[in-house]
Amino acid sequence: MPTSQHLAAQDLSARLDPMRQAAPLVHCLTNTVVQTVTANALLAAGAAPAMVDHPEEAGVFAGVAGGVLINTGTIAPHQVQSMPIAARAANDAGVPWVLDPVAVGFLPVRTGLAADLLELGPTAIRGNASEIAALAGMGEGGRGVDSVDSSEDAIPAAAELARRTGAVVAVSGARDIIVWVEEADGASSGEVRTLAIDSGSDLMPRVIGTGCALGALVAAYLASVAGEGPSARLRAAAVGAAHAHSSAAGRIAGRTHQQPGSFAVGWMDALSSLDAAALIDEVSVSEL
Amino acid sequence: MPTSQHLAAQDLSARLDPMRQAAPLVHCLTNTVVQTVTANALLAAGAAPAMVDHPEEAGVFAGVAGGVLINTGTIAPHQVQSMPIAARAANDAGVPWVLDPVAVGFLPVRTGLAADLLELGPTAIRGNASEIAALAGMGEGGRGVDSVDSSEDAIPAAAELARRTGAVVAVSGARDIIVWVEEADGASSGEVRTLAIDSGSDLMPRVIGTGCALGALVAAYLASVAGEGPSARLRAAAVGAAHAHSSAAGRIAGRTHQQPGSFAVGWMDALSSLDAAALIDEVSVSEL
Amino acid sequence: MPTSQHLAAQDLSARLDPMRQAAPLVHCLTNTVVQTVTANALLAAGAAPAMVDHPEEAGVFAGVAGGVLINTGTIAPHQVQSMPIAARAANDAGVPWVLDPVAVGFLPVRTGLAADLLELGPTAIRGNASEIAALAGMGEGGRGVDSVDSSEDAIPAAAELARRTGAVVAVSGARDIIVWVEEADGASSGEVRTLAIDSGSDLMPRVIGTGCALGALVAAYLASVAGEGPSARLRAAAVGAAHAHSSAAGRIAGRTHQQPGSFAVGWMDALSSLDAAALIDEVSVSEL
Repeated sequence: MPTSQHLAAQDLSARLDPMRQAAPLVHCLTNTVVQTVTANALLAAGAAPAMVDHPEEAGVFAGVAGGVLINTGTIAPHQVQSMPIAARAANDAGVPWVLDPVAVGFLPVRTGLAADLLELGPTAIRGNASEIAALAGMGEGGRGVDSVDSSEDAIPAAAELARRTGAVVAVSGARDIIVWVEEADGASSGEVRTLAIDSGSDLMPRVIGTGCALGALVAAYLASVAGEGPSARLRAAAVGAAHAHSSAAGRIAGRTHQQPGSFAVGWMDALSSLDAAALIDEVSVSEL
Repeated sequence: MPTSQHLAAQDLSARLDPMRQAAPLVHCLTNTVVQTVTANALLAAGAAPAMVDHPEEAGVFAGVAGGVLINTGTIAPHQVQSMPIAARAANDAGVPWVLDPVAVGFLPVRTGLAADLLELGPTAIRGNASEIAALAGMGEGGRGVDSVDSSEDAIPAAAELARRTGAVVAVSGARDIIVWVEEADGASSGEVRTLAIDSGSDLMPRVIGTGCALGALVAAYLASVAGEGPSARLRAAAVGAAHAHSSAAGRIAGRTHQQPGSFAVGWMDALSSLDAAALIDEVSVSEL
Repeated sequence: MPTSQHLAAQDLSARLDPMRQAAPLVHCLTNTVVQTVTANALLAAGAAPAMVDHPEEAGVFAGVAGGVLINTGTIAPHQVQSMPIAARAANDAGVPWVLDPVAVGFLPVRTGLAADLLELGPTAIRGNASEIAALAGMGEGGRGVDSVDSSEDAIPAAAELARRTGAVVAVSGARDIIVWVEEADGASSGEVRTLAIDSGSDLMPRVIGTGCALGALVAAYLASVAGEGPSARLRAAAVGAAHAHSSAAGRIAGRTHQQPGSFAVGWMDALSSLDAAALIDEVSVSEL
């Protein structure tokens, strides 16, 4: 039996208006393929983007941002330097930061980089099933990337990561999975909790950057609760709210758009027009 | 009393057809978040983009382009090298160039870089109120970035920059402000002129790159008057025309689009469909 | 008289469904201006993108991709290193790769780089008329870039490149030209074949990246025939199919969209919705 009430759709939708009121500045060190859509998704959802990745500037900016995203998609050599600097600066300033370990496990530079970043303690980790499995597999007792087909297959890997790092771990897919370790009296209770969020559209994976932009939305929602000295449960609600916001917008866009070009426009519009009531209508939320 | 007639909407709209006939090639050293929208905005408006920032190529290209944009948004180490090279090559070839000092003042590398670029004498400077204030504050007698809320608050800083550098200085915002020092018989008259342009849409700041793309349009319009050995007044008209073109397109798009995804598409369409008559209808222009 | 039947629209459209069934992963080392549109075009057409250009990762990924695109548009210093590494890894693994020599001929770094890449034997080369002429002009007996106005003007240069390298050479323009050297019994017959494809829209050059994304589609179609130990004729059909797919989508989009912002959305939609029957209807294919 969980030590606290289940998180429900209302707990997620309750994060929407506070996020928009905070309009957090999210500092994204992210891949160049998705910078534009990430910036536009933040603006549409109600947050604000900044992207500064020079090694002598990335830390300065991370220290004053509301939240930080580190996405390893298209690392250039100078970004490999900047990312740990930004993570340390975020930690020093109490700024939440999100690790999106794109393509980790197979490619050598980012795999080493992600291992280093994991040691620095991200507030949340977001990836697809293979990436979460690969990231979990780096540690002792890790599992490989075999047989990870759906986001649910990666729940054991996500749980291992959550226990090891204290991060809220999100596995994005047709069904989004959020895993965290519950706290009691501010300390880990050791109890692993798992939330499933169903919504979205089959067209989302056919538009580049919907997943990477979601990583930035996770940072925006975490930024908006950072001042509350958030419990693991509140952090999980923030991570879940970002997923619900993005996938609900996808579901809305998918109703009127059948092809990826116009769907991408509709998704952006819906990120902006969506309100808390619509969010509840468009998603199914259940603890597993 | 001004030494020459006030600039009016007709003086700005008169620059549109010549710019399209020249179809100037604008060489953009700009941030990776907005490269795509900048290139598309140039193409839609009637110019042509090129983006070459390797240190051994940027100068070669700047020397043959019609105009150059230098935007400090996401400087990588090799771009920090390339930008002064491009500015010098533009100067040597008589090619107008625009400085867009994104986030200058707070972040160390770009702040030093912008100071160096300022010494090289940009033809125009375009930024938001905080950036213009920060850039002005680098010199002697400079003012800080405090209490700069609207573009009008930055008029004194813009005037200081215009006097110090001879550049036309544009402060973009809900109201766009263009400041320049009048010339008489080809020499500075010392008289500071200030133009206000009102148009646009509340959705423009919710689409990434509308401001940065405007910097490229400024370079395109300056390129189209460069052959005329332009007076300060003609350069100001060119800078104003770029602002009027962009904000009029925003106003048109805002009439039919209420959300940022479709607004972005509509703005691009209107950059292309707009003609000189519509430009006059959609903007208010006044000298302050 | 050709040694084999002429390639017709049906030979091109017959490649569409197999490409979609293969859903090839295309590794793009391409310019940052067009990464987003390139990734979206691959996804819309039915392939999958990846963009990895760190020098220590680019080769690893090229060896496992279905196809590789190397586009010299905005080379950063680390990409100048990565591109030959990726080309060699593709060769070692039998992965087809495409060279898109953006702005080669005038700019020094990419011109040397393209010469090196040409030596490595691209499976296909795609460029506009000036780029193909410039690339051909690097070798002995080469011609300059003078008087190359239309894609047909570049046929002699394309033929020279095809003979010298064995690559299928595509000159994209209002009319697309595909040139290759016919094979008999698996060896070059020395006979140069030339295919013309007519379709498209005047708006295509007004949207950034339609040409660069086409380079990625060429890699996707080549990937989908790579397992067949393809003859030159089959490789030419694959390259032609990519051009037909892109330009047919442009023609469809141009029927309902008159401005570049909405045209870009419509082109992406049509890349996705197009089927083999529509492809035949929308293009004219003829051997010259």
